Amino acid sequence: MTSQLILTLVQILYFYNSIVETKYFGSNEYYWTARNKLQAVEQNMHLGYQLQLNDKEIIVNTLLMDAKHAEFNVGLIKPVDFLPSMNFLKAKPLIENSTVFQIIKKMPKGAILHVHEKAMVSTDFLYNLTYIDDLFICITETDEISFKFAAEKPNKSKGCDNWELLSDLRRNENNIEELNAKIKSSFTLIVEDPDAVYFDINQVWKRFNSIFNTVHGLLTYRPVLEEYLYQVFEECVNDHILHLEFRGSLPEVYEKDGSVFNEEQLIEIYLNIIKSFQSTHPHFSVKFIFAPSRNINQKVFNEKIALFKKLKALNPDFMVGFDLVGQEDSGNALIDFADRILKENIDFYFHAGETNWKGMTDENLFDALLLGAKRIGHGYAITKHPAVMKLLQENKIAIEISPISNQVLNLVKDLRNHPAAELFSIDYPVVITSDDPSFWGAIGLSYDFYEAFMAFTSYNDDIRVLKQLAINSILYSGMSHEEKSLAMEVFNDQWDSFINETINSYS
Amino acid sequence: MTSQLILTLVQILYFYNSIVETKYFGSNEYYWTARNKLQAVEQNMHLGYQLQLNDKEIIVNTLLMDAKHAEFNVGLIKPVDFLPSMNFLKAKPLIENSTVFQIIKKMPKGAILHVHEKAMVSTDFLYNLTYIDDLFICITETDEISFKFAAEKPNKSKGCDNWELLSDLRRNENNIEELNAKIKSSFTLIVEDPDAVYFDINQVWKRFNSIFNTVHGLLTYRPVLEEYLYQVFEECVNDHILHLEFRGSLPEVYEKDGSVFNEEQLIEIYLNIIKSFQSTHPHFSVKFIFAPSRNINQKVFNEKIALFKKLKALNPDFMVGFDLVGQEDSGNALIDFADRILKENIDFYFHAGETNWKGMTDENLFDALLLGAKRIGHGYAITKHPAVMKLLQENKIAIEISPISNQVLNLVKDLRNHPAAELFSIDYPVVITSDDPSFWGAIGLSYDFYEAFMAFTSYNDDIRVLKQLAINSILYSGMSHEEKSLAMEVFNDQWDSFINETINSYS
Repeated sequence: MTSQLILTLVQILYFYNSIVETKYFGSNEYYWTARNKLQAVEQNMHLGYQLQLNDKEIIVNTLLMDAKHAEFNVGLIKPVDFLPSMNFLKAKPLIENSTVFQIIKKMPKGAILHVHEKAMVSTDFLYNLTYIDDLFICITETDEISFKFAAEKPNKSKGCDNWELLSDLRRNENNIEELNAKIKSSFTLIVEDPDAVYFDINQVWKRFNSIFNTVHGLLTYRPVLEEYLYQVFEECVNDHILHLEFRGSLPEVYEKDGSVFNEEQLIEIYLNIIKSFQSTHPHFSVKFIFAPSRNINQKVFNEKIALFKKLKALNPDFMVGFDLVGQEDSGNALIDFADRILKENIDFYFHAGETNWKGMTDENLFDALLLGAKRIGHGYAITKHPAVMKLLQENKIAIEISPISNQVLNLVKDLRNHPAAELFSIDYPVVITSDDPSFWGAIGLSYDFYEAFMAFTSYNDDIRVLKQLAINSILYSGMSHEEKSLAMEVFNDQWDSFINETINSYS
Repeated sequence: MTSQLILTLVQILYFYNSIVETKYFGSNEYYWTARNKLQAVEQNMHLGYQLQLNDKEIIVNTLLMDAKHAEFNVGLIKPVDFLPSMNFLKAKPLIENSTVFQIIKKMPKGAILHVHEKAMVSTDFLYNLTYIDDLFICITETDEISFKFAAEKPNKSKGCDNWELLSDLRRNENNIEELNAKIKSSFTLIVEDPDAVYFDINQVWKRFNSIFNTVHGLLTYRPVLEEYLYQVFEECVNDHILHLEFRGSLPEVYEKDGSVFNEEQLIEIYLNIIKSFQSTHPHFSVKFIFAPSRNINQKVFNEKIALFKKLKALNPDFMVGFDLVGQEDSGNALIDFADRILKENIDFYFHAGETNWKGMTDENLFDALLLGAKRIGHGYAITKHPAVMKLLQENKIAIEISPISNQVLNLVKDLRNHPAAELFSIDYPVVITSDDPSFWGAIGLSYDFYEAFMAFTSYNDDIRVLKQLAINSILYSGMSHEEKSLAMEVFNDQWDSFINETINSYS
């Protein structure tokens, strides 16, 4: 307990004593001094305020802050139009018109550290995959869509009585537009009135899980998977992201003839695509967190751990860690697997505290800390746990915050109420990430950076917040020390280019 | 900086060192010890956990906790039905069916410290006032309702072209039910779909302010005012409240003949009613916070301060303090009046931080602290200001939390996201209060206590939270030391009766 926390407390203690000693009451002059001091104490505690801006950065910062202040000032007069208060499923097109967003889009953002394998790409790309040959479609009993590539019509399977060739359907169907709209909408949560349709957290998760089922058959087809990953990397680079850590369950990947790849082979496929992409993008790197469902029994859990260790031994640099995924409120708790976890010396990156409850699901935060997580996914309930909060901060265990995900999945309506607004005030170790961007029509990190900058920061918090978030994402990544140094060099170059280009484009 | 904060930090420091020293990693046994320890550290930091329960209290606590756990468990399965997540305007009848609420209703709750003069009574009572003789009504140009008691038809006034005798209207009107429904609905914010109608904070405040205008003419008529105050006190006592501190602007009170009372005379009216009520309820006490609108200029502010000082000199025990009221986001800031405030040695009870903004309206929190507030109204933005938060805690300056008000007036949708959930975790100096209960159909404190208990506490937090909230309300009231001691004695007697009666009624 030597670093940030003590520093903060010493600052506050110092300030407190200086007020008490000088008895500011009745001293008009001292009030203004005390106010300036107190504001400065708080400002200096904010995320990013250890950074110094150079002259060029100050110019870009002015552009950014003018735009930010304009949006805040409009929001004060017409709160309903303030975008972080609005469900992202409605706000997205409006965000795209924001000058703040335009600047963030061009800004290097470091690493994306929490994103799920089946939800990383732009929706248009997903939809276009449905025009590939030999794609069969099935509308299930529960009116969900399943896909499968096959050389011949697949047999009936669970929930699917009748597979039809999508290209045939599209040729013969009278109302082809309706079919295409249905397919398109099956890839995202986007609806006209999200607050009404997704009336609670379980309701939205039901639909959320069904999207995973829909994209599964598309993205586990080997040729599509390869194309998909390449596209994901390209979209990352286009969004000025230099490193990706994605979570995946290593699903069974298949060929059109029905042959399948095992997990070891799947990792090979991943690594080949990465290698191929790196031949033209040498500064882009990728790591993987093995993340099976939390709804497994002890036996399967043990198998997954064993599998992880085997694959980690084969690919030590790529396989950075282990996690469990799925709706926390309805799934197994970390404590259920504690005995086994304690026997392993594995880097864990646990989802924990993605909940509105207190003293229930959020207790996963105790276990994420005590079982030695390297980072924590979501950690939405963290401010309700002051001791865990301080210990994570002391140990520099970062929380992966996904603002849009938390809003769309019904944890919080107005993002200004997100606990990250507090975490940003105390320079808590955080990174901003995107979770499942394709499910709400986002790409990369820019949308989440926009929400974070507009909802979690103070009126006068500036470009330093955004730069620090990018730096944090490298610092708290699963990269080795050497990899981090290199990534910081690349980031600094990208940042300088961004600053220069922004100045040029505005002058 | 010697008390609670240091204690908390020492606890955490101790815990942190004990973990680091013993290197719990890989030690299965130590994990369980550490987990229990960490949970205990947090539990002991919670509001109320310094209290010890006696055997009888433990019995009542079991009844309460069974009911609480049942509601939490249903909420986990069907989140949409968890009442603190639901707008109170819809949840109210459902809350009334809750066993937790039934128990809280009978529980002594101490003092009610933040409630506004025109919004303290049950809606039915307000409505029944409209059957008193000589009441004129006017539907204004903006379709609001104004009332005025008068011996003769009043002249046209601002917005009111035509005053009509309500009793005549009720006799002659074809659609009397529609008229009565319109009158009834003019007293509250209750509508079928509040989330749609009150789509942002400015929208709901517009309607909120219009209710104040509607009840004004009723409640400033001297005979009604007297009856009203008596009723308010009675409803407090029925809700097991022993002390009331209400905020008021000292409006011009009138007689039917048009004669009016000045502020000094109004205070006399207040004191007479209090005295009369106390003749049958000797343990009920009342104090007053003078709270004019924040939307006044410097000159009027100076006049209000002068008036306060004059009245305070005349009624030192009754007039406890000064505040400014009205929507914070759109009104003057405390800093605008700082120069004058600093010249005065007055007890201030400022509204501050009733906002979703960060680095804007919420800066009133700096000023509330530095200008020496005795308590802070709402303080909703407090967790975004770590230094102010610690200094208030150190100085035992309580925050007056009004859960339902914050929800209905659009600061937060799901009350589990209210910052008080964090404040309760660290035994922050808080009181629960009701702000404007009549505007949302609530009475007294029970509804707000229910929301606080269900939304801000942990699954296992028990009756000690509720008892501590009652104790806090006495501790942080504007009562003198002697008055507080007496009130604590009365409270303890009430508490014992509550415990005994609850045990008897269940056995």
